[in-house]
Amino acid sequence: MREMHVAVLFFAFALTGTTLALDNGLMRTPPMGWLAWERYRCDIDCENDPKNCISENLFMDMADRLAEDGWKELGYVYVNIDDCWSSKQRDDQGRLQPDPKRFPGGIKKLAHYLHNRGLKLGIYGDMGKLTCVGYPGTPLDKIELDAQTFAEWEVDMFKYDGCYSNATEQEQGYPLMSKALNATGRPIGYSCSWPAYQGGLPPKVNYTQLGEICNLWRNYGDIQDSWDSVLNIVDWFFENQDTLTSAAGPGRWNDPDMLIIGDFGLSMEQSRSQMALWAIMAAPLFMSNDLRTISSGAQSILRNKMAISINQDALGIQGRRIVKEKSGIEVFWRPLSKNASALLFFSRRTDMPYRYTTSLSKLSYTAGSYKVFNVFTDETASLKDSTEFVVSVNPTGVVMWYVSAPAKFNLRQFYQGGTLHGRVYDDREENAIPRVFL
Amino acid sequence: MREMHVAVLFFAFALTGTTLALDNGLMRTPPMGWLAWERYRCDIDCENDPKNCISENLFMDMADRLAEDGWKELGYVYVNIDDCWSSKQRDDQGRLQPDPKRFPGGIKKLAHYLHNRGLKLGIYGDMGKLTCVGYPGTPLDKIELDAQTFAEWEVDMFKYDGCYSNATEQEQGYPLMSKALNATGRPIGYSCSWPAYQGGLPPKVNYTQLGEICNLWRNYGDIQDSWDSVLNIVDWFFENQDTLTSAAGPGRWNDPDMLIIGDFGLSMEQSRSQMALWAIMAAPLFMSNDLRTISSGAQSILRNKMAISINQDALGIQGRRIVKEKSGIEVFWRPLSKNASALLFFSRRTDMPYRYTTSLSKLSYTAGSYKVFNVFTDETASLKDSTEFVVSVNPTGVVMWYVSAPAKFNLRQFYQGGTLHGRVYDDREENAIPRVFL
Repeated sequence: MREMHVAVLFFAFALTGTTLALDNGLMRTPPMGWLAWERYRCDIDCENDPKNCISENLFMDMADRLAEDGWKELGYVYVNIDDCWSSKQRDDQGRLQPDPKRFPGGIKKLAHYLHNRGLKLGIYGDMGKLTCVGYPGTPLDKIELDAQTFAEWEVDMFKYDGCYSNATEQEQGYPLMSKALNATGRPIGYSCSWPAYQGGLPPKVNYTQLGEICNLWRNYGDIQDSWDSVLNIVDWFFENQDTLTSAAGPGRWNDPDMLIIGDFGLSMEQSRSQMALWAIMAAPLFMSNDLRTISSGAQSILRNKMAISINQDALGIQGRRIVKEKSGIEVFWRPLSKNASALLFFSRRTDMPYRYTTSLSKLSYTAGSYKVFNVFTDETASLKDSTEFVVSVNPTGVVMWYVSAPAKFNLRQFYQGGTLHGRVYDDREENAIPRVFL
Repeated sequence: MREMHVAVLFFAFALTGTTLALDNGLMRTPPMGWLAWERYRCDIDCENDPKNCISENLFMDMADRLAEDGWKELGYVYVNIDDCWSSKQRDDQGRLQPDPKRFPGGIKKLAHYLHNRGLKLGIYGDMGKLTCVGYPGTPLDKIELDAQTFAEWEVDMFKYDGCYSNATEQEQGYPLMSKALNATGRPIGYSCSWPAYQGGLPPKVNYTQLGEICNLWRNYGDIQDSWDSVLNIVDWFFENQDTLTSAAGPGRWNDPDMLIIGDFGLSMEQSRSQMALWAIMAAPLFMSNDLRTISSGAQSILRNKMAISINQDALGIQGRRIVKEKSGIEVFWRPLSKNASALLFFSRRTDMPYRYTTSLSKLSYTAGSYKVFNVFTDETASLKDSTEFVVSVNPTGVVMWYVSAPAKFNLRQFYQGGTLHGRVYDDREENAIPRVFL
């Protein structure tokens, strides 16, 4: 239903020529959901590891959790299969088919299971003769057939990986798949791994073209379950922010890869940092974790409504790093609709909380009085652009603010927008402003 | 009180010539407690950061937590001051004095505060003219005076850092301080940073001599609040295990530095790994965290009685890495009293839980039937040496076992030893043995 409204809006935009995004009307805000790869890889050992192997049971389990535990209502609606789902052979009509032991009900039935719960199904393929792990790929001569198969199965999203394909094949194949998916008549979100195989940067990567054929694209290497991996990805994305931010917008997103929050490698501080940095980047939010056993601490981060609403802001402008201090403090900024913005203070230190002093005017805010909402503590305050303030940023942690438009901003109205949880704003609090935000 | 008994035992050993450890009778098992440095560094800004600055309040706060929250009963009894405690000037009699604003009651009063709660006080000095941060050091000509001052203040432990001193001064100073501390007549545990300043290895470091003059020594660089730092330390200690394990024993310990569990940089998996690896290493267990706000998850790891009892095993034999698999799985082993041992399976992977197959005989256990107790899950099982088993080890995580002596081991008796919490062993369970330990 929601897709319909968005689609209508989108075509209105398209007619006025204000967008260059893929014209399937999908993913006007970054897609959200769950993706199997980082956490489950190519575990096909259902005999010894029945709860975690790549099988329809795993995806139904996650669908149950998304639908029953309130994730869906927050926007996490995609349940995405990655590599290792298919049989090693195509069927006698040349079509891809799921592994019969691990997906005995077939993909279409799994899609229905998801759709009945208000969720969407994503599937995976590869431009080469083989997928990265060695299952049948979707080379040029199979693109139309496989697109039709996915549509027939009522799949809602397709990730097209690039192993075992060369640059020439990719140049033909990625646009061809886009056309083939559109030609099915079924709206299928299209995730392209193409730029990651080209090094992620122009002139090899043509981001204008990508925006026209894909809804999202992996620019860089796979995330691993470690803070080093998160930092490595963050470094690359913000070192290349001039190139990347201009490529992103409604319907076309840079994808720094999955959220590993709830897995094994991140502390709570680091988990908040990934969530906040992905929100600043307008990144797709695909969790890859075990929603059956995830800790309440990790859940509260992934369920943070304010972080999600920043990620999902309708303008779809990807944020930037605006300050890099020698102390290891970095400041990120993302413009949001209603003249608001997100401000993120991040510490690369590994010693102790750092008290960082600055002011909104030093961060290039125009003169005025702003309302500030702390995303992870629900504190609120008013701040003049010229007022010096101190934020205490934990090692590898963040402080994230939603900063309202100056002066005329009405926080009560903002709360009534429905995206915020927590306490009700009280005008009297305006006069009880803490100068220090902890 | 306990110290007295140990001392008596110790002198009995000394007479029979079975030990070479420093003859102050202290620290027959690795010291445990709390140390300010990693978490609080040289924060002296009590005006803006009163709860966290280096002041008597911080140490009294931590003493309250240790005494009131049950840490003391687990063995965490030292409360140790590090750098930045003193005035920038010695007093008019040339003695060190605490900063008057931050320690208005003086050190002796603080020591009493701790002693009244059954705790012990540690203090810090430096072999050079200045400490590492720049406070007055304890160079050669001040050693006797400062040792006497510490004894007069009723200090229980002294960490002697090495900044701004050269090799010749260190060679004189570290043994001289040992004598001076002994000469005070007060039992003062002695922590030497000397080997860390010599590169940690022979021939520069003489571990035989260190064992005769110090109770513990820092072999390597300072820990930081990151998993990379923990791994870097672990790598160094186990790459040099042949040298290091032979140096350790009751009264003389290698010190891989503080526990950062409860701080900002480690996930729960990684926190369990640090606790387990420090237990295998027979390492001093000095937490450096905020006991006022520490999460229950971190607490349960630091309070794990079985991990603590392995760390504190009376034999005091430092464990070793016995297997290093290409898969990233490593196995560590420590012999314990009563013919028992600790086995640790550790994963360096950053993808997903790894199912590692082995047997006790493959790990060089002699033939027999063993009882196995899983330190972090409280599972128990019987295992024949020849039985193949699977342990599932999480990325950056551990599975740690207490393995009883073969055959005649009586687990019920073991439980009655008083060091174990959790369920009561039931003989019937012997026949319900899970082959897989998750």
